[in-house]
Amino acid sequence: MYAIRGNGVKARGKFITFEGIEGVGKSTQIHLLAENLRDGGYSVLVTREPGGTPLGEKIRAILSDPANGNMSAKTELCLFLAARAQHTRDLILPALLEGTVVLSDRYADASVAYQGDGRGLGPEFVKEQNDWATDGLAPDLTFWLDLPPELGLSRVVKRFADQGVAPDRLDQETLEFYRRVRKGYHELALQTPARIIRVQAEQPVEKVQKEILSAFKQFVRKQETSGVS
Amino acid sequence: MYAIRGNGVKARGKFITFEGIEGVGKSTQIHLLAENLRDGGYSVLVTREPGGTPLGEKIRAILSDPANGNMSAKTELCLFLAARAQHTRDLILPALLEGTVVLSDRYADASVAYQGDGRGLGPEFVKEQNDWATDGLAPDLTFWLDLPPELGLSRVVKRFADQGVAPDRLDQETLEFYRRVRKGYHELALQTPARIIRVQAEQPVEKVQKEILSAFKQFVRKQETSGVS
Repeated sequence: MYAIRGNGVKARGKFITFEGIEGVGKSTQIHLLAENLRDGGYSVLVTREPGGTPLGEKIRAILSDPANGNMSAKTELCLFLAARAQHTRDLILPALLEGTVVLSDRYADASVAYQGDGRGLGPEFVKEQNDWATDGLAPDLTFWLDLPPELGLSRVVKRFADQGVAPDRLDQETLEFYRRVRKGYHELALQTPARIIRVQAEQPVEKVQKEILSAFKQFVRKQETSGVS
Repeated sequence: MYAIRGNGVKARGKFITFEGIEGVGKSTQIHLLAENLRDGGYSVLVTREPGGTPLGEKIRAILSDPANGNMSAKTELCLFLAARAQHTRDLILPALLEGTVVLSDRYADASVAYQGDGRGLGPEFVKEQNDWATDGLAPDLTFWLDLPPELGLSRVVKRFADQGVAPDRLDQETLEFYRRVRKGYHELALQTPARIIRVQAEQPVEKVQKEILSAFKQFVRKQETSGVS
């Protein structure tokens, strides 16, 4: 048993998040890991931010809609926090209490990088807001899929062209914005090296998954060794 | 000219808010005052929270929807702040800069009373969050239409019955909740007596409007006397 910080609850589940800018292949890696873990006998929940709950998905629709292009940075942060508070309370914490491995496509770090660094609201301020919204819940392990923004964006442009759809509000941001976001992730990884693992996302999909799975196994072994399971 | 705190902007407009629990007659009083002021040559903007902007109205729809009955208190506060940040930046500040009298059905005080006291998130914490979301903009004058919650709620129940519609999410709250909200407004009024004017809302509509108009005129005279216009 190890402590989940949220309200001091103890649980056996594992909370794993995937972070990174657009087009780094988070969804693919999450689904591969989920499959691998289920094959290994784990109970797995795949979720995403913003979203995760019915209410969170309604908030996601507002955040994604290109019609809301003039959204203020503060409004944007508040909407992410609103969805995150509900997601944490209603979905993530209960799943962790049941012993589930929760894999989330983005979580609190994303707001630090995107709204704190990308939008300039300040990473320290955003961290405090996150702590409040999540009751202090932090992931056990975070995979930061890192890719130069030029590469990530060209993947996104190709994806939208292939699907014949328009990019959503956040996908319309500039390269300069994504450089600030990447810098934000980089600083987070330097500050919490035991939790955040940087994975070079330009490698082949199989290679990336191998690194992720290996880090997951190492994390589980470390927990077992320290009497935590 | 007097200072609007938001970003240190100076403006000639006047920012007047109306506060109070459900069923106290805010809409009626706002429309009567708007008419009176327009007759007196003022340019007037009537707005409301949550809402005011197209984005804010989408957030209002989420907040009002009874389907979101399990919304966490933190999510609720974040949604109000999200709408308020956009409302302040895009609608209220520009109108004040043009010299308009802005009449808002609720503003930051409502979150202090509803989420701070009603939901128990703490009035001081909510005040800090408001200051951040609004860049420190505060109303020049606030009319708190006060009514015992029993009376307000019975008016609301009657209104919904007359219209044959179901109450929205916040209108389903308990009497105990509205007592805490009222206490929150009462404390705000004690803390900022020069700004918040308590009006007994059980009086006849015309009597309430007379008090409001008289207080507005007194406020304008005071501004003129102190060289502020």
